[in-house]
This record gives sequence, C-alpha cells and structure tokens, in this order.
Amino acid sequence: MSAAALFRVEKDLLGTLEVPADAYYGIQTLRALNNFRLSGVPLAHYPKLVVALAMVKQAAADANRELGHLPAEKHAAISEACARIIRGDFHEQFVVDMIQGGAGTSTNMNANEVIANIALEAMGHAKGEYKHLHPNNDVNMAQSTNDAYPTAIRLGLLLGHDTLLASLDSLIQSFAAKGEEFSHVLKMGRTQLQDAVPMTLGQEFRAFATTLGEDLARLRSLAPELLTEVNLGGTAIGTGINADPGYQHLAVQRLALISGQPLVPAADLIEATSDMGAFVLFSGMLKRTAVKLSKICNDLRLLSSGPRTGINEINLPARQPGSSIMPGKVNPVIPEAVNQVAFEIIGNDLALTMAAEGGQLQLNVMEPLIAYKIFDSIRLLQRAMDMLREHCINGITANEAHCRALMENSIGLITALNPYIGYENSTRIAKEALVSGRGVLELVREEKLLDDNTLAEILRPENMIAPHHLKLLTPPSKEVVDQQR
Amino acid sequence: MSAAALFRVEKDLLGTLEVPADAYYGIQTLRALNNFRLSGVPLAHYPKLVVALAMVKQAAADANRELGHLPAEKHAAISEACARIIRGDFHEQFVVDMIQGGAGTSTNMNANEVIANIALEAMGHAKGEYKHLHPNNDVNMAQSTNDAYPTAIRLGLLLGHDTLLASLDSLIQSFAAKGEEFSHVLKMGRTQLQDAVPMTLGQEFRAFATTLGEDLARLRSLAPELLTEVNLGGTAIGTGINADPGYQHLAVQRLALISGQPLVPAADLIEATSDMGAFVLFSGMLKRTAVKLSKICNDLRLLSSGPRTGINEINLPARQPGSSIMPGKVNPVIPEAVNQVAFEIIGNDLALTMAAEGGQLQLNVMEPLIAYKIFDSIRLLQRAMDMLREHCINGITANEAHCRALMENSIGLITALNPYIGYENSTRIAKEALVSGRGVLELVREEKLLDDNTLAEILRPENMIAPHHLKLLTPPSKEVVDQQR
Amino acid sequence: MSAAALFRVEKDLLGTLEVPADAYYGIQTLRALNNFRLSGVPLAHYPKLVVALAMVKQAAADANRELGHLPAEKHAAISEACARIIRGDFHEQFVVDMIQGGAGTSTNMNANEVIANIALEAMGHAKGEYKHLHPNNDVNMAQSTNDAYPTAIRLGLLLGHDTLLASLDSLIQSFAAKGEEFSHVLKMGRTQLQDAVPMTLGQEFRAFATTLGEDLARLRSLAPELLTEVNLGGTAIGTGINADPGYQHLAVQRLALISGQPLVPAADLIEATSDMGAFVLFSGMLKRTAVKLSKICNDLRLLSSGPRTGINEINLPARQPGSSIMPGKVNPVIPEAVNQVAFEIIGNDLALTMAAEGGQLQLNVMEPLIAYKIFDSIRLLQRAMDMLREHCINGITANEAHCRALMENSIGLITALNPYIGYENSTRIAKEALVSGRGVLELVREEKLLDDNTLAEILRPENMIAPHHLKLLTPPSKEVVDQQR
Amino acid sequence: MSAAALFRVEKDLLGTLEVPADAYYGIQTLRALNNFRLSGVPLAHYPKLVVALAMVKQAAADANRELGHLPAEKHAAISEACARIIRGDFHEQFVVDMIQGGAGTSTNMNANEVIANIALEAMGHAKGEYKHLHPNNDVNMAQSTNDAYPTAIRLGLLLGHDTLLASLDSLIQSFAAKGEEFSHVLKMGRTQLQDAVPMTLGQEFRAFATTLGEDLARLRSLAPELLTEVNLGGTAIGTGINADPGYQHLAVQRLALISGQPLVPAADLIEATSDMGAFVLFSGMLKRTAVKLSKICNDLRLLSSGPRTGINEINLPARQPGSSIMPGKVNPVIPEAVNQVAFEIIGNDLALTMAAEGGQLQLNVMEPLIAYKIFDSIRLLQRAMDMLREHCINGITANEAHCRALMENSIGLITALNPYIGYENSTRIAKEALVSGRGVLELVREEKLLDDNTLAEILRPENMIAPHHLKLLTPPSKEVVDQQR
Repeated sequence: MSAAALFRVEKDLLGTLEVPADAYYGIQTLRALNNFRLSGVPLAHYPKLVVALAMVKQAAADANRELGHLPAEKHAAISEACARIIRGDFHEQFVVDMIQGGAGTSTNMNANEVIANIALEAMGHAKGEYKHLHPNNDVNMAQSTNDAYPTAIRLGLLLGHDTLLASLDSLIQSFAAKGEEFSHVLKMGRTQLQDAVPMTLGQEFRAFATTLGEDLARLRSLAPELLTEVNLGGTAIGTGINADPGYQHLAVQRLALISGQPLVPAADLIEATSDMGAFVLFSGMLKRTAVKLSKICNDLRLLSSGPRTGINEINLPARQPGSSIMPGKVNPVIPEAVNQVAFEIIGNDLALTMAAEGGQLQLNVMEPLIAYKIFDSIRLLQRAMDMLREHCINGITANEAHCRALMENSIGLITALNPYIGYENSTRIAKEALVSGRGVLELVREEKLLDDNTLAEILRPENMIAPHHLKLLTPPSKEVVDQQR
Repeated sequence: MSAAALFRVEKDLLGTLEVPADAYYGIQTLRALNNFRLSGVPLAHYPKLVVALAMVKQAAADANRELGHLPAEKHAAISEACARIIRGDFHEQFVVDMIQGGAGTSTNMNANEVIANIALEAMGHAKGEYKHLHPNNDVNMAQSTNDAYPTAIRLGLLLGHDTLLASLDSLIQSFAAKGEEFSHVLKMGRTQLQDAVPMTLGQEFRAFATTLGEDLARLRSLAPELLTEVNLGGTAIGTGINADPGYQHLAVQRLALISGQPLVPAADLIEATSDMGAFVLFSGMLKRTAVKLSKICNDLRLLSSGPRTGINEINLPARQPGSSIMPGKVNPVIPEAVNQVAFEIIGNDLALTMAAEGGQLQLNVMEPLIAYKIFDSIRLLQRAMDMLREHCINGITANEAHCRALMENSIGLITALNPYIGYENSTRIAKEALVSGRGVLELVREEKLLDDNTLAEILRPENMIAPHHLKLLTPPSKEVVDQQR
Repeated sequence: MSAAALFRVEKDLLGTLEVPADAYYGIQTLRALNNFRLSGVPLAHYPKLVVALAMVKQAAADANRELGHLPAEKHAAISEACARIIRGDFHEQFVVDMIQGGAGTSTNMNANEVIANIALEAMGHAKGEYKHLHPNNDVNMAQSTNDAYPTAIRLGLLLGHDTLLASLDSLIQSFAAKGEEFSHVLKMGRTQLQDAVPMTLGQEFRAFATTLGEDLARLRSLAPELLTEVNLGGTAIGTGINADPGYQHLAVQRLALISGQPLVPAADLIEATSDMGAFVLFSGMLKRTAVKLSKICNDLRLLSSGPRTGINEINLPARQPGSSIMPGKVNPVIPEAVNQVAFEIIGNDLALTMAAEGGQLQLNVMEPLIAYKIFDSIRLLQRAMDMLREHCINGITANEAHCRALMENSIGLITALNPYIGYENSTRIAKEALVSGRGVLELVREEKLLDDNTLAEILRPENMIAPHHLKLLTPPSKEVVDQQR
Repeated sequence: MSAAALFRVEKDLLGTLEVPADAYYGIQTLRALNNFRLSGVPLAHYPKLVVALAMVKQAAADANRELGHLPAEKHAAISEACARIIRGDFHEQFVVDMIQGGAGTSTNMNANEVIANIALEAMGHAKGEYKHLHPNNDVNMAQSTNDAYPTAIRLGLLLGHDTLLASLDSLIQSFAAKGEEFSHVLKMGRTQLQDAVPMTLGQEFRAFATTLGEDLARLRSLAPELLTEVNLGGTAIGTGINADPGYQHLAVQRLALISGQPLVPAADLIEATSDMGAFVLFSGMLKRTAVKLSKICNDLRLLSSGPRTGINEINLPARQPGSSIMPGKVNPVIPEAVNQVAFEIIGNDLALTMAAEGGQLQLNVMEPLIAYKIFDSIRLLQRAMDMLREHCINGITANEAHCRALMENSIGLITALNPYIGYENSTRIAKEALVSGRGVLELVREEKLLDDNTLAEILRPENMIAPHHLKLLTPPSKEVVDQQR
C-alpha cells in the first residue's frame, strides 16, 4: 500500500499536514490533536454534545439556504451529513480533547471538517476536496466559534436533560417505595449522633425521597430557564458583524425546530457571548444534588454499620465479598462510591467556577473546560444515581426487631412519656437509667407510674411520630406541658 | 461595690455560673461564650438574624397563647421584649460566636435568655428570676433549636433580601447609565485578548448591566422559592413530638404576619429539619454574582490599564494616591477589592458546601457555619457592590479619541471591509499591515480600493456594531460573502 | 469644644480631609477607611502583623541611618515609635480593613502614618506636622509597599508560629496521654463502618497523636523553609530602583536581628515581589491539619454516639445542656465546632488560592486577601485546638466494659481464632452467629473447639493487637495459614 | 464456537458469574466492573499504579517465601507473572474503574486475579483453576487491601516522580534560556496593570524560571518525605493481626529493593492505615505549581495581547489558525489550555481534600478517589508543562523595539529621573505628559533639565534595572533623595 493511500495532504494558513486517509476530520482537527494531549477525553465521550453540534450546523445551513447564501446542492449535502451524525454514525470522528485552548475553535472546526468531508463524499468528491464544499466557507457560514460553540453546549445539555431527570426520578421512586415499605418500622431518631426521639424508618426514607424530589423539580425548571437562550447569530463578539440581519432569527428558529427544544435568541448578544452565569448556576445545582446524595449515603452507611458494633438498623444488599478473612463482612461499597462521585462533582464545580471567573472582555476562553466539567458532572451524577438505585436502595431490608429494641432501650424514649409522668419523674428516671444501664420503660413499669395499657397507647407508632392530642390520665403540673426543646 | 452587685448566680443542669449583673443573657449563653472563642464574630454582627430570632419567638408565643398554653401575662411580657429587640434595643446582648457546636442551641438559648430577662424586668422582677418566666419553659415553649433556629436563619435572609437587591439594582443602573453615556464611543472588541472586531464602549457597559440584571431577576425569584418554607413546628426531629397538633399552622401563620414574609409550613418536616439544600443553592447563586462581578472588575482593570503601556480606553476615578514616587499613578483599588471579595465569597461557598455535606441523620449540626457563611457572603457582596458603584463606576470616563485611534489602527478592522474588498484583498492587506506596522485603512486608501465616502459609510458606528444589509459597490466573489468565523 | 479641636486637616495628592484630632493615623488611612468598608476586620485583629510592620519600619530606618540618608533625630523618633508599637501601645490605630485594594498600600500607609505621628509628638510637634517628619519621605524611606508589606506578612507569620506549634503540641500530648490511659481498653476496630478486628482504644488515641505529630514536625520545618526569604529592598518591582546598593543587605540584616527570626534576602527580587507560592503551600499545610482534626472529631463523635443507640465506647465531657426535654442528653459540641472551623480553613485556602492565581505581571494585588486568610486560618486553627484539648480531649473517659462486650460479641472476633480452628470452622461459626444472633465465643465454647485456657490466651490483648507467633495446638490445614485479606 | 469457550465460570461467596474466557481477571474484578461504571477511567490509565501493584505483590510473595509460607513453585509462578506485568504485558487487564467503593478492594483483587491467572498458565493450568494457586490465599497472602493498596499508590507516585520532575526541569530550562535571550530587552514593568518602572524582559522570564525552580526543589524533597513511609504489613487495620512478626520488615525491605525506591515501614501502623495527610499535602503542592503556571500563562497572554490594541511585547508561536475571518489573528491557545489544566488540578485538590476528610475510624474508604485525583493531576500537569514548553515557550520572540518605545513613552520613566531632576520637577513633568500626551523624555529634553549624555547614562539598562550608586550632577534637595515608595 502506498503512502499516498494512507494519508491525504491538507493545507491551512500555517502550512500543510498529512491527514489519515480514512479520517473525516481535517487539518485543523489534526493540529488540535497535536496541540492538546491533555485529558485524553475526546468530544465523542459526550454524544449529546456531538449531536448538538450537528444540529447547530444544520440550523445555520437552513438559515443560509433560506437567505440565499448557500446553494441548494451544498445545503442538501450538509443536511445529509448532519443527519448521519445525529443518528450516531460518525461520533468516533470527534476526536479533539475536551480541554483545549482557542475557546472551542478546535471543537467547532472538528464539526465543520467532519461534516464537510461526509458531505463531499455524498456529493461524489473525495475527502479533502474543499473547493467543492468548504468547512469554513460553507459549513461554518455565518457562524463564529464564539456563537456556534456555546449554543451547542447549551443544546447538548438540554438534549441530555430528560435522561438525567429520569434517573433522578427513578431513584426518588425507590426511596419512596422503601418509605412505604418501612412505614411501620419504629426506631429512634438521632440528632448530633445522640439518641433523640422516636420516628419510623419509613419517615427517614420518605425524607430522602422528598429532598431529592425538590431537586427534581428545581432541575426541571432550571434547565429551560438557564439554557434555552442562545447567542447563535452573534458571530465573533455579539455584534453580528457581517451577518445578514435576518440570520439570527431564522437560525435560532430552525434550531428550535430541529432539536425540539424551546430555544430563543439572547436579547443582548454582546453579553451572551461572554457570559457563563448559566453554567455556574447549573453546576451549582448539580453540586447541590451531589451534596444531598452524599449526605444520604453517609446516612445509609451509618444506619447499616455493624453488624454487631454499629447501628445495624438496615441491611444493604451484598454486592461483592468484603473480605476473605471475615465471613459475613459486607461493605457498603455502593454508597461509598456515590460519596466519591459527589466529591468529584464538587471539585468539577470549583474548576468550572474558576474558568467562569477567568473570562476576559468579549469572550470566555475557558469555555471548553466549563463544557467538559458540566457534561462530566452530569454523566457521573446520572451513573451514580442509577448505580445507587439498582445496586443498593432497591435491595435494602430493615432489621425491624433491632430498630424497636434500640428504641425501647433508649433513654430518649422518656421524652414521649414526659407529658404523662411529668418532667421531674422523667429526669429522675432518665438519670437512673443512664447510671444503672436499665431501660426507662422497665423503670416506669417497676415504679407503676403508668399502667401497661397506657404505656402501649403512648408507644403506638401513630402517637410517637407526629403531633397528637395528649389524652392525659392525670392533670400534669404546668411545667410538664410547657417543657419543650 | 460588692461582688454580689457585679454578678448574679444562675444554674443549669451542669451546675452554677456567675453571670455579669447587667447581662440580659444567662448561664447557657455564658457557657457558649466560654466554649466557643473562635471566629470572634458575634450574632450581633448580623442584625437581621437577631431580628428574625425575636420574630420567631414572638410567633411561637402568639401560637402558644392562642392554644391556651401560655398565660396572658407572660405572653404580654414576651411580646414587649421581642418588640424591643426587633427595634434594635438589645442587639449587643447577642454575643455568642457565629461558629458554635450544638447545631445552634447556643444561639437559640441566647435569644431565649435575653427575651426572658427583658420580660422579667418588664414584669417587675429581677434578671435571672426564671421561676416567674423561664427561658426554656416559656420563651422556648413548643420549640426546639432544631426548628426555631433554621426558621430564623431563613427569615433573616428574607428580611435582608430587599436591601441586597436594591444595591444590585443601583449598580445595574450605574452600568446602564454608562452604557448610554458611552454609546457613541467606537472601539475594538477583543477575544482571547487579541484584537477582534469593532463595537462600542456603550455596548460593553450595557452588557455589564445585562449580565447583572439576569442575576437581579434570578435572586429576586430564588429567595421566595428557597427560603419561605420553614420547619417551625417540627420540634426535635420533625415529628412534632409533644407539640399540639394545631401549633405548626398557627405559629407559621403568625410568623408570616409579623415578618411580612410569605412563609409557609414545610410539607415534610423530617426532611426540612435536616435539609440544607436551599442554602447550598442560594450560596451558589451568590457565588455566581460574585464570579460575574470579578469578571467585570478584571475587565475594568484591563480597560483602564496603562496609562501609556496598557489599553487605556477608560479612566477609573482616583480614590487614593497610588504612589509617592510616581506622580499620576492611579491604581484601580476599588475593582481590586471587589475581586478579593469575590474570592472570599467563593471560599465561603465551599465552607458552606462542606458543612451541608457533613449533616448526619435527623439534623445538620454544621448549620451555624452555614448561617455564618451565607450572612457573611451577603454582607460582603452588598458592601462590595455599593463600593464599586459609588467609588468607581459612577466616575468612569472614556478616552474616546484613544478608543477610536486603537480601532482605526487595528488590523481587525479589515473584517468590516471584507464584504466590500474581498477576502483575498483583505488577507493581503492584513499581512502587509502586520509586517509594515501601517494601518489597514491607510493601505486601503493608498491602493484606492475604496473611496473615502464608502469608507466613511462602512465605518459609521451603526454599520459596524450590528448586523446590517451590505450595500456592495461591486458584486463580490462568492467566497467574500460566505467567509465567516 | 470647637470643631478645630475635633479634627485636623491633612492633605495629599487628591486634596484635603479632616482627620480626627486624636487619631495617630493620617489622611491616607482615612481614605482607605472610606474606601474599604468590607470585612469589618481591621489590621489590629492580627497583632503579630502590626508588630511585624513596626519591625520592618525599624529595620529600614536603621539601614537608612547607617547609609546616611536618615538624620539621627528622625531615626531616634522613629525608633521610639516603633518600639512603642511593638510593645502593643498603639494597636487600635491600625484600623484599615484587611480586605483592601492597592496591594497593601493602605496597610503600609497606616503604619507609616501612625509611626510618623507618634514620632512627631515625641519630637515635640503636633500630629500632622509632617514637614518635620514625613510618613512617606522618612518612615517609608527606601521602601515600597511592594517590598515592605510582603516582608511584614512573612515576619508576622513567623512571629506567631511558635504559639501555633505550642497549641498543636499540647493537643498531641493530650491525645498521647489518653493513648496511655486507654492502652488496656480492648475494643473492635472498624473499617468501612463495619466490624473488623480487635485493637485497643489506646492505639486509636495514640494514632491521633501520631498523625498530628507528623503535622507538628512538618509545620515546624515548613515555616522557616517558606517564610524566611524576604524581598525587602526590591522596592517597586524588585529591581531596587533608586535604592542604595547597600540597602537591601543592611535592612534585612537589621530585621533579622530585631525580630530574632532567621530572615534572608530573596535571591531573585523580581520573582519574590510577585510570588505567592510560599503562602499557597503554607495554607495547604494548614488545610491538611484542619482535615486531620476534622477526621479526628468525626471519629470522636462516632465513638461517643449513643448513649444507647450508637457506639458509646467513649464519653466526651459535658460542656453545656444538650436539651431541656431529654435529661442526660450530652451533645458533642466541641468536636462539632472543630469540624466547622476545619471547613472554614478549607474555604480560606480556596480564597487564598484564587487570590494567588489572580496575580498579574510584577505584582500580586490580591495579597491583602492572602494575608487575611492565612492569619485567619492560623488563629482559628489555634483556638480550635486549644478548645478541643481543654474542653474535650482531657476529659474523655472510656466505657471499658462496653468496649469489651462489643468486641466479644462481634463476629469479627472469629478472625483471631482463624489460625487455631481453621477457615472452614470459622466460616461456619460466623454464619451461625449472624443468623442466630449469638456470640462466636459462645459457639466455639459450645462446640468445644477450644478450651477456655486457650481461648483466654488467644484473647489476651497483647496477642490480639499486634503480630505474634502463633502457638497452634493442632497443625491447621494449609489454607488456614494462608488466608488473609 | 460454543458458549463454554467464550466464558469460564468462577465462584465467590456471593455465587457464580461467567468470566470472559480470555480475561486474566476473575469474578471479583467482574463484580467490580458491573458495580462501578462511573468515571470510565480504568486502572490501566495510570501504568505506574499497575506496575506498583505488581511490585507489592512480588515483595509480599518474596517475604512469604522466605518465611516458609509460600511454596517455591507458587513463588516462582507469581514472580514470573509480576515480572511480566511490570514489563507492561498485561496492563489492559487492569479494568476496574478508578472510582470504586470498597476502599480499593476491587483494585487489589484485580491485581490478585490477573497475577493468579498468568501464574496458573505458567504452571500449566487453565485460567480459573484457583485450587492450584489462589488469588486470595496465595497472591494476597499476608496482605489486606488496607495495606497493599495504599502502599501501591505511594509507590506508583514515586515511580512516576522523576518524569514529572524532568518535565518541570525542561520547562524551567526553556524559561531560563528565554531569560538569557531577552536579557537586553528593556521594557516597562507593571504593577496593578499600571505602568511602574523599567526592567528587562529577560528579568521577567528569569523570574518564571526562578519561581518554578522553587517548585522543582520542593517537589523533589517532598516526595521522599511524604511517600516513602508505607504501611505494608499492617494487614486489616494496622495491628498486623495474624501476620508473622517477621513479615513487615521483610516485605518492605524487598519492595524497596525491587522498586529501587527508599521505602521504609511506617512507625505507627494504625495511624498509617487511615492517614491521608501525605496525599493532601502532595496534592497541595501540585496545586501550587498549577497556580504558578496559571499565573505565568496569564502573563504570557497579557504580554502577547494585541497585536495592535494590546501590549504586544512578545509574540507566541502560531499553533493553529485563529480565525478564517481575520487574517493574522493568532490566539494564545497553548497558555489558554494550561490555564484550564490548572483549574482542573485545583478542582482535583478539592475533591481529594473532601475525600481525605471523609475517612472514618480505622480506614479511609475514599482512598480510590484520592488515588485517582492525584494521578490525574500529575498526568495533566506533566502534559501541560510539556505542551507549554514545546508549543509555546521555545518559540516566543520579543518585539524589542516596541518594548523600548513603550518604556520611553511611559510616564513611569520619570521615576528613574527623579533623583537627578528632583521630585518637584518630576511631578510637574509627569502631569504635563499625562495632559498633553507627550513623552517625559521629550519634555525633559525640551526644558534642558538634563543633557543627552546624562539621559543616555541614566537610561542605560544596567542602571535602570538594579540598584546603583547615583552619580548626581547637581546636589539635589534632601527630599529628592528620600522619596521612595
């Protein structure tokens, strides 16, 4: 096989390079490959971003066609190329590193070149014969990296948003189902890791569902609020220099249609070209969800600690042998992994924040890192939530008897008896229990402070775990009623 | 003077302590003072938090009165005390360090004790005679730190929110006014710190107003979304144990009335007791505003750099002598200070994030740090915005002639001529300009590529800074129209 | 009293201002007060920084005197003023906000003005009569903010370093003493919050001492490595422009003598003027200590959790009533406060890091924030360590019987029997114990797998908590010996 | 081909799974693959970690052989397997995700299983026939994940350290060479982005070399200080339970020999098992280098800004076309990418810090994230430094005439004339220059304040850029000499 068959020669302002013959990308992509060997994570790692890039190119081509700037034949070929990329046929051609200088120029050119070469082949030309259809002049027509790239990032995030929400929703459903399943399991609540007052394990799991439910609602509303305003049409710095006055409106309208997303043109294109605020807040919201997941996983690890020297109220499903030396040891490996993902997302948020702060004048050149970190956080978050649901939450079981035994043995139980036996009796019995190691119920029974029926009534779950009207047997002294903390 | 006159002795579960005779706080506050000598920042540093604590206590007292648990006389005395605190008469009595263990118990007790002692004096008793009115039994009736404290934090943030918004709004108006003032000042836009294409200085300042305007709208809507749902009535862990079933509804209703804030009860009190998500997102939003301010201040420092060896497009007002050795040196001290405040706020957001992650089971014991950092960020942000507006933005002037000269001398100007003289001519002239150091306009004139009238028309600001229909003198070759980046 | 008596009028390049008559600071300090109302934390909050500023001024005056540039009378008056500041007589005159623009110019001028006015009074002049002795010309002679201020920061950190080390050392001693005290308390070790293998509580506390001991050694060596190289003599940008060639050497030599710190001149003054690397690493080290303290406090809270529904191996001393409603509830308030301090220090490190990154060209204008955050972290760290030692560690007691009971009841104990009864027996008994809820020792005894003497021998602490030669009663099968995880 | 040929069935405590027939890893690795689909980054991504794992296994096998626990045949087969892994033959078999629960158990088991299966084949058995040689019983003999894994991380970092230092050293040499090359290029120094005083471009680049040189020295000394102390031999929690008393010493000694690294046993194995302090500080040091690189790249972008409307003192080599629309536009893409890598490393440091803080009791289960982030930071840092050197620094050229012109036109130049013409003249001329737009040298010449020879003498580089004895033509008034800032 000859060398000519292995490579084609392409040319740009800086000179010529040999591009692999079978590559659909071209010389500028190759320069970026040579320049930026950093994260090792290529664009293809985030398929929604690739799809979004193709949609932006399609929308621009449509607008340019309608305005009479792009001939029908070229438009048809570009459209065919974009359609195939959107179908996923050429993702592996998006090879540029997610971390790159040039504010996304390499990403934009990677898209331009791949589309051009697919289109060229469709038109019956060889790859690289750009005189027939040019990556810049035709595919990138009326665009700048500075408007096409941020638009694609926003669109890519929107395209993947429903999947993220679906994963979160499924996880919430799992927690809610466990909340139902455990609604009768009485246990002690803990504040500051100290025994507090009774609750149900169901309440605890329902609270996990509630707190994540708030994030579902927030994420659902934030994405359209933050990401649908795009700066396509602003060209280099938002002044739309050399762009047709009708272009912006047409292009954004087409993009909304193609993508099915409610995209609208930014009102202040100068601002929209450099502003990264939407990403900062969106990442801040992802960080919030990560923080909640980490807190929940910390709780799961605490509640399942033991089996003998910990709390041991719940059992996490065994996912892998914990140790060959200790039969029965099951480690909470899934929550542990979620914790680590949460820390990673918090670190991503910081990197993104610094990148946002580092923008200067009419552009933020750190945008590639911003895109990388936000796509990465979303992917990690989604995978972690799926893992947590499938491999952990759905299989959790309760040690109901142990939960109840801990509660009945707890000194904190005295709080529930407080309105019936008075604060002074409560105090005395609590201290006696602490010193003697005996249970407060046992002591109350021994002193005949309450009969068994009354005790049973007080200890009925529905009376322990929510406000209820006190049916006092004897009128308590004033302070008994008033005492609260 | 006798020792007895200097101190009074108070007692709690751990024993007795001597409390300064003139202190309205009591033994538990004193214990906190002795325990927590950390930040040196007392509660009084954040007056809205103090006011909010008093309002919570007032609302609880009203509900307890209505439910028949709190006698009229005590209610009257507590109400009088709360009113005086809300008026600001006793802020200096809120002495506990913002950083504290105990999940806010010390803050809550500081409020309970101060209110009790003010009330006692109003009832004709001496401070410390708690048998007549007790900090816990009466002032804290039906409350736990775990519901009263987070409710007060949320309310405190709401109470200060309008002032924050007003400072932001004023700053936006200042930027917008400068946008108007500079709307005729033509200059070069810059991307990646490299000369790009023309714009106006007015567009640049209007973009600052736009980007902060987005934050104003977001902050305005986020605060009610995040902060109005309170867990008052949940008592220790959200089960409302020992609370009257009617209490939650009444107490929150009263608090909304007293504060004028649209407070509502949280739906899931278990969740609401431990969840810090609202603070994480609110702080994330403050961080976003800080990032934008930092970016703007970086730009102001760049644009005013020089006067001779920098960009020098604008002049910041002189606020203090820059140097005794270099007459005329004016340093951009105000933007520099804003940058630092921004970094501080970003650091605060991290501390708060870690504190939110550190919550366990039914409570987040790190809540004092969360409260501290969020109040601190708001105060810093507001002060920095006021400083920036008063001491910097309002006094900025433009070096109009220099802006125009830089633009006319810029090679980037060729972009505007591109559609008229063709891409090949543009390329050739740009290179010649770069090598020779001459201006592109000069070269275009020299080559008579365009007559002076046409050049003047092209260079009219309204044609340079927005998309416009090209009135070409001669039909350009196809690629001239198509070329875009 | 006339207005004239309340104020004196001072003048600088920007005009005149009324300075309070009793203020030792002057017009430039007053401008800074008006400009920077941000953190509310004045220089005086960090006394070592104030002392260091005075020492730098003294050293410069000495060098200038020796070089013949400063007359004897002025030198004497400046020396007297510096001595009084070093003694602590005028700290309240250092009023400028720690967050300030101008790269520390306001701090430097605050020092210059206070020294000048003290000196003027000593010379028999009125405050403000700068013709006799000038803040810039005389006190600041041969200095720039850009060399005097960073030098003072480094020196200030060195001056406080021994106190920080002493607090850390005391805390280590406390942990070590508890390690001794608890050396006989056998307990279960836990990995991943799951029961692992036996150890002593003494080993656990000794490990706390060990890990902090590593930080003591590291902090002790890092401070001189990072902070003793100063850029005094570099003037504006490190070129030492207009400075006497002999000045740098003399000034640094004097400063070393005055302060008793091993200060040396930086080799590359250009680099030393803008480099913040020493602070980044020093703060990174403080962050490490904070992380360790936070981990330790998390452990203390876990180990003391309960008393009935948690681990309850140790008791923390009660520092304040935990709750009026739950007698006997003691919250781990001291470790909780340390956790929060740790998060604050980590947040400080981030703010400092961003400030360090934000330096540009020949100077880092964010240095005031860097100084603020590092002094703040040190103060917080030291106070938190003192609090932890005094109010928590020294009073910790062990629940020895409970520790042993947990261990004896733990299935993990089977690991220690593994080499004696074989892996198959171990596995079977572990499973039986888990299912039945019985103890492994009980089952081993029941099955007579080992006699009581042998069991006692195996369970002797010294055999459980360190590698030891196995004295096998019967030759075990091969895999028994080999099994390890 | 039959299904049997595609898979082999393996078994562990949780049941059986089908392992791909050609896989050298086994069932536990497969479980981890199924559990942890998170980052998508496998162990193989960090070859030094894989090599280190094999070395640890080799050292343990050697010690076990010497102690008589491992038969010669097994030892030989394990040794052969380790040797081949160290040569790089099986890296692709290390497939587990870098983020994983279980504190590294999956990583450890991946190594154990791959080694066992290579060894089995060498012994003439089929993969999976563990009765002949077992991943746990033989390969993992006398080890726990909890000692083998942290030891491998430390060793992996040490193995890659020289390469990191070499990249840093090469970058320093490049900066130093440019410092030499530009030593005669006179320019203005800038503080606070404002014109300050003259310096050379050589001084500026030498300062870059100096500041990174400090990091080279620090990194060189920190690695052995932090990473050579290993906890191999501590087994599960550091007590060395069931390990032979002679094992620890032998194993560490062997590991040092095999790796050529000065490894020593940790003194307190309990502490060493859970302590992550070494990684926190090492990452903090990497963060410091990242901060310095980011600051340097910010400077490079500032200094090369323009070409017409910026500073334009230097030219960065063109790496890729900046824009199709603006001929001659060269963007500083390499420094921009370095900035982003720096932010990534700072984000990594945060994730690692949170992971370190999240450790509990006898183990830090977040260690996999710690390992991931630190290896990632090192790889990114090294690649960024290589890229910066090759693609940017080595090709930088100076615009010498423009540097000099800016300096001569600068008002800041007056500072150098200050000692010769007096402060009053300087002030007057500076103001006149600022108002009129004329140069200070021109004005000085016009007023004949200094003759041309003297001016030339003053402006000689060697007199401008370092302290020098002033040869005054006329005795200046006292204040002229004294004025300094």
